[in-house]
Amino acid sequence: MVKNYVVGIDVGGQTSKIGVVDAMGNVLAQSVIRSDVFGEDAGAFVKALAESVRECVVKSGKEGQIRGIGVGAPNGNYYTGVVAFAPNLAWAAKRAVNFSDMLSEELDGIPVILTNDANAAALGEMTYGAAKGMKNFIMITLGTGVGSGIVIDGKVLYGHDGFAGELGHTRIIRNNGRLCGCGRTGCLEAYCSAIGVARTAREWLDMSDEPSSLREVVNISSKDVYEAAKQGDQLALRVFEHTGKLLGEAFADFVAFSAPEAIVLFGGLARSKEFLYEPMMKAMNDNVLKIWKDKVSIVFSSLKESDAAILGASALAW
Amino acid sequence: MVKNYVVGIDVGGQTSKIGVVDAMGNVLAQSVIRSDVFGEDAGAFVKALAESVRECVVKSGKEGQIRGIGVGAPNGNYYTGVVAFAPNLAWAAKRAVNFSDMLSEELDGIPVILTNDANAAALGEMTYGAAKGMKNFIMITLGTGVGSGIVIDGKVLYGHDGFAGELGHTRIIRNNGRLCGCGRTGCLEAYCSAIGVARTAREWLDMSDEPSSLREVVNISSKDVYEAAKQGDQLALRVFEHTGKLLGEAFADFVAFSAPEAIVLFGGLARSKEFLYEPMMKAMNDNVLKIWKDKVSIVFSSLKESDAAILGASALAW
Repeated sequence: MVKNYVVGIDVGGQTSKIGVVDAMGNVLAQSVIRSDVFGEDAGAFVKALAESVRECVVKSGKEGQIRGIGVGAPNGNYYTGVVAFAPNLAWAAKRAVNFSDMLSEELDGIPVILTNDANAAALGEMTYGAAKGMKNFIMITLGTGVGSGIVIDGKVLYGHDGFAGELGHTRIIRNNGRLCGCGRTGCLEAYCSAIGVARTAREWLDMSDEPSSLREVVNISSKDVYEAAKQGDQLALRVFEHTGKLLGEAFADFVAFSAPEAIVLFGGLARSKEFLYEPMMKAMNDNVLKIWKDKVSIVFSSLKESDAAILGASALAW
Repeated sequence: MVKNYVVGIDVGGQTSKIGVVDAMGNVLAQSVIRSDVFGEDAGAFVKALAESVRECVVKSGKEGQIRGIGVGAPNGNYYTGVVAFAPNLAWAAKRAVNFSDMLSEELDGIPVILTNDANAAALGEMTYGAAKGMKNFIMITLGTGVGSGIVIDGKVLYGHDGFAGELGHTRIIRNNGRLCGCGRTGCLEAYCSAIGVARTAREWLDMSDEPSSLREVVNISSKDVYEAAKQGDQLALRVFEHTGKLLGEAFADFVAFSAPEAIVLFGGLARSKEFLYEPMMKAMNDNVLKIWKDKVSIVFSSLKESDAAILGASALAW
């Protein structure tokens, strides 16, 4: 039987999403499982995932027609098929898991290709989304953390060891920077992720007595800051302006590296587009070499968040 | 007649070097012309260069057997064949020059391929030098300025517009940084070039009364700092330590981008290896993500400086 369909899987810390996808990028069937109920038992998670893949394929009516499975997972390595030391995945936080081999084995040897989640999102945007037709762009995922997928001449950049594109862990503040989840200080992720935005708001509230509606919020999240900004809260607006400025400065350095056509933004925090876009664009153009001034665009993902990751992962499997 | 030879040209601010090269990387004949005696007259420079190429080919005895010409020049664009706004080349400082077309026309239509000087050096190291066999590395040229050539999967990275790899103009100091030749502030080049090292020494001498043999030197150059360091001058030694530290910090960010196997150093300042290597290596390893700690090497060019650029440029022409 001709195998004209693939499965895309987006592995996340809380949930993992599975989709059966055709060659046109239509998601024929979808399912979701919890990823956070298996503790450190990688085997149990992979078994549950395989079970859900089987069910999803049955639901799509394409049994026996699946060519392969593409998976996007935090710290997933394209070369080795290993998920290693991923802080947000309990079953792979402290060790390296032979994820591709394990999943393939559970599913009668069907080929499984792995990459990290930001690379999968980049593939999704390139194949079906805002980066369609682009050969050189940088995908930045602004979520709980800051991830990146770098596309050069139409191919995802993996580098010597498969780990290329950790732009969330380049330094934006070199001295006295904030502690980052990676154990280092001053990383872009520590300032420009959803968590970073909330931290900036909390710091600024602590350091001044400026009135702000955020003072009434317990345990401020980036969403609270967004809502306050929408209501015209000055401190919240400045938090986004500052975040956008830091992003733009970082992008200027990224442009000097790979001279992309565009920076493509994706993820929960990218929804604050209305507050981030202008300061980001201005800071990038103020900080690039003249040859790139007003030449590089910043675009936002045009895919539904859940689809982008599944579609991107599925693009791997073709 | 079979065309089994190529010409490599290294265009520099003061001199331009020409070599006839065989497929094994042997330089069969070489010549040099001054590049700084033509003012803004690009046509006159190209004519003189063409004349010198002809003479060099005659000297090599390979008339009629030249397959093509590869040229490395500051701000040379691989896609367009244009040299544009190169501060150190008077004839192209203020405008864009159709260099490849002009040179090809002067030489009866022989194909001319252009790239920037750092990319040419990267090609030279990959084909004949310290990066032989490497598929993913970053070449950093430490000369009057700081240039870079980035190699990904065995190919030089050009990016969307042909200008990728301006790592000398990423920011190493974000606030109150030194003015750089590009008109911006805080660029790596403003600190870690030959000129940057001399500036650091002069600044430190001005800001303290620490004894140093450099106080007797008029118009301190990086070479003076090197000589003083060799004699054990403490201030000069610290200047190199500081320069190496800044380079290592910058390298850590570069590694997060393309995950190279190695950083390859080249150029006049790279000769201060004995003083730069340790602080550079330490700062890089102190600043990379854990996955790269002690995994990325820093190596020094193994080619004679003049040969590397000619060989690299010639590699373009095959």
